[in-house]
Amino acid sequence: MNKKVDILNLREWTVKVRYFDIIAGGLIVVLNEKEANMNGVYPNFRVKLVKGKQSVVASVDLGEKFVSPGEIGVFKEVADALGLKDGDKVKIEHIPRPPSLDYIKKKMDGKTLKQNEINQIIDDLMANRLSQAELAAFITSVYIRTLNDDEIVYLTDAVAHSGEILDLGKSPVVDKHSIGGVNGRVTMVLVPILAAAGLWVPKTSSRSITSAAGTADSMEVFAPVDINIDELKKIVLKTHGAIVWGGGMNLASADDKLIKIRHPFSLDPKGVLLASILAKKKSVGSQYVIIDMPVGRGAKIQDIKVAKDLARDFINIGSRLDMKIEVAITDGSDPIGNGVGPALEAVDVLKVLSGEGPRDLREKSCLLAGKVFEMTGKVKVGKGFDMAQKYIDSGKALSKFREIIDAQGGNGNVKVEDVSIGPYKYEVLAGRSGRVSHVDNKILSHLARAAGAPIDKSAGLYLHCEKGDKVHKGDVLFEIYAESEGKLDYAIKAYENGLDPIELQKIVLDTIR
Amino acid sequence: MNKKVDILNLREWTVKVRYFDIIAGGLIVVLNEKEANMNGVYPNFRVKLVKGKQSVVASVDLGEKFVSPGEIGVFKEVADALGLKDGDKVKIEHIPRPPSLDYIKKKMDGKTLKQNEINQIIDDLMANRLSQAELAAFITSVYIRTLNDDEIVYLTDAVAHSGEILDLGKSPVVDKHSIGGVNGRVTMVLVPILAAAGLWVPKTSSRSITSAAGTADSMEVFAPVDINIDELKKIVLKTHGAIVWGGGMNLASADDKLIKIRHPFSLDPKGVLLASILAKKKSVGSQYVIIDMPVGRGAKIQDIKVAKDLARDFINIGSRLDMKIEVAITDGSDPIGNGVGPALEAVDVLKVLSGEGPRDLREKSCLLAGKVFEMTGKVKVGKGFDMAQKYIDSGKALSKFREIIDAQGGNGNVKVEDVSIGPYKYEVLAGRSGRVSHVDNKILSHLARAAGAPIDKSAGLYLHCEKGDKVHKGDVLFEIYAESEGKLDYAIKAYENGLDPIELQKIVLDTIR
Repeated sequence: MNKKVDILNLREWTVKVRYFDIIAGGLIVVLNEKEANMNGVYPNFRVKLVKGKQSVVASVDLGEKFVSPGEIGVFKEVADALGLKDGDKVKIEHIPRPPSLDYIKKKMDGKTLKQNEINQIIDDLMANRLSQAELAAFITSVYIRTLNDDEIVYLTDAVAHSGEILDLGKSPVVDKHSIGGVNGRVTMVLVPILAAAGLWVPKTSSRSITSAAGTADSMEVFAPVDINIDELKKIVLKTHGAIVWGGGMNLASADDKLIKIRHPFSLDPKGVLLASILAKKKSVGSQYVIIDMPVGRGAKIQDIKVAKDLARDFINIGSRLDMKIEVAITDGSDPIGNGVGPALEAVDVLKVLSGEGPRDLREKSCLLAGKVFEMTGKVKVGKGFDMAQKYIDSGKALSKFREIIDAQGGNGNVKVEDVSIGPYKYEVLAGRSGRVSHVDNKILSHLARAAGAPIDKSAGLYLHCEKGDKVHKGDVLFEIYAESEGKLDYAIKAYENGLDPIELQKIVLDTIR
Repeated sequence: MNKKVDILNLREWTVKVRYFDIIAGGLIVVLNEKEANMNGVYPNFRVKLVKGKQSVVASVDLGEKFVSPGEIGVFKEVADALGLKDGDKVKIEHIPRPPSLDYIKKKMDGKTLKQNEINQIIDDLMANRLSQAELAAFITSVYIRTLNDDEIVYLTDAVAHSGEILDLGKSPVVDKHSIGGVNGRVTMVLVPILAAAGLWVPKTSSRSITSAAGTADSMEVFAPVDINIDELKKIVLKTHGAIVWGGGMNLASADDKLIKIRHPFSLDPKGVLLASILAKKKSVGSQYVIIDMPVGRGAKIQDIKVAKDLARDFINIGSRLDMKIEVAITDGSDPIGNGVGPALEAVDVLKVLSGEGPRDLREKSCLLAGKVFEMTGKVKVGKGFDMAQKYIDSGKALSKFREIIDAQGGNGNVKVEDVSIGPYKYEVLAGRSGRVSHVDNKILSHLARAAGAPIDKSAGLYLHCEKGDKVHKGDVLFEIYAESEGKLDYAIKAYENGLDPIELQKIVLDTIR
């Protein structure tokens, strides 16, 4: 009977493109309401658009007068996908119900998914055959019903193969990942150390979403990071390392779509989190991965027990995917480095690689790099940290960093004073004397963003104190930098209205009258 | 700390409206991407639009060139909500995280929701503060975790009060509901019978979504059905009954939104189904409700055990909401009446009320009307069916129907031959002799829709046979009616390609070679 009913799904018609230069936030087209209804297309439907041999599935909006019968309103994403321009003809076809809806329902009902079923879900996700609501239903089901180890391995594999694959043909390929913590710019210090030692480090990083800078934002202060996979391969084969924007290439693409869905409730079902991270690593051919798992106030994970369980899962699932994984549980309650904002953090990195700069950034980077040296057998366990320090002290890490900057198309001879900061600046002074009891990462991010970061690369904060420091009334606690006077004022106002990242120890906690 | 961070949410700015006459399928606006980002607004965000004392929450799309900085692209729904036109100024404000996200998460985690928490979810739903994805997460969680009786009662109450309330100030107010089955046009026969007997029947009905006609589509052949709540009250107080389109008024509005979410997986978590139906009844003040629950092949419920459990739930929850409910489990495997399509079904109704027409439609209508007579104490149990028949045979039901048509603004003197059918017609003949073993409701709907129903009111099918009939090769099985030759051809082709609703008994089921 299904076959029979599908006949109605075969109705197709041709329309003329009216192009609108608008980013719709997804593949969306507008059809004339009357015409669409006559053809069995209603609100929230998706249709297949065909032009020549290319096709794409788009969500349908309906308009009364926006487009006339015989026309289709096309926004930027769809136009780009099919190379459409005003006046082009496209064919509209009904799409059958995506098969993965049955598998999402299966998970909803608490059953275990098979490999082909998980593959189908990721296929449909990639082909835009699932709506935001359907994907939310999937993630919610996975959150409630959970995934078993087999399902996580299948999901990781499916996500890893949803995009392009980097195959360097070299060994060992090493990688580093930080779990949603504020980690300063450890990556930018660690990659040159590892590359200088002859390991292969094709590091893909993200841009900031809610923080003041992502690694990609900060690296971009020195060199382009929007680099495709062929260029990345050439750069790494030449210099052993690279630090590029992962979102700019097509690696494990399904993950970018999955992340968006997890967002509304900050849902991170364990299985999806594991698959998401490990798929990215798998897609660049990583064999050894050090995972930085910050724990504590303000970090994503607050409980050490939870961190340890998750670490165990990473190691187990990793080994089933032929990746050797170690997890470093780190203190995530305070910021690393002094700078907050793309350029200010970039300066921290350059200083540390030159043997100066913030001590905590140097230490954390060397600790993690050292672990990788130990994992790969470059050095005996316990000696990795010292080995990493030597690469900094000998200047080898710095020259490697300059090589990488050059290879990515930047100026390898860059000096600290070349990096533009500000130019508008405001000093925040201690209103009283006391000991710094906490520096709040989240508030730092908010305040730096109020000043313009990460879009304004030179904007942000520079910290002059850290937890434990004694400060005196009138001391500079931190500086705010902005690219315009208006933005500086805005940030100052935000600070004055209570966005204060520095907590001083209280002697009198409260007064009862 | 939350208070501090919220400071950034206070940023607001003013923009100039550019109006686009397009139904976007929701409250959607377009902002200039750069400007939005600078103000902390990113894809998938929602913002509050303020004009004078009115405000509305809308989803944000971002455009590079579609709108310039300082402008906002406004589609039809938002323009209607705020009465906006080209050039108007509106203020944009950030909205805080909707509080109900925490309660949705709570349900996801398997906990029981309190009354104020369920109220908040419905409030946020009504104020458009929840995205499709967030609502899908809610429905998925309810499906997996279920609602207990308390939660269902709270939900029903919240939904019932999410829109306007009809208070007739009369008693007894009676109502009828059919659970997703094909029920022919029982409602249009039953309402005049009950109203003629002096009961109060403010019946709200739906338009077709996937079938060939909803009750509202069919009633509209005789009279306007898009009637507001004040008019409905006047009509019912005058004639005791009305048959109007529920979607046209603002009753239990949250339900219309909930239905859309349940759609992708045909999810009907029991609790939401109960709340959805009972809230509509509650909102028109129903005190006695007969529920028609068709069971069998092609019906929503296939298993009589499931039907009985659900019936029990309706009765229990109903009594907690001061509604007396009875459930009639009916045979839903075959169509009721001969017509399929708005006008063809309307003709069935007029014939039955005139003492002619399809026997099954008369019987089912009188059975259900009879139950209501018994529930309200109008007649002793066991005598309701006969009482209902008398209202037809005496002509009182027909005159009441004509009164209702007049009161709703139609022509109460309408005759069967006034109802336009076709005019294009095709007779489908039996290809062989045999006994009719099944008439498929779903295929009937698809075929009638292929012919143009329900948009073309005169299009559809007319059945000349029913299950059990013996037919001879060459007999007319059914006729197809359409408003244009093209649509008739299209339906004929669909039929010839296998969309055949009539199954003849097979003697040889299969041949093995």
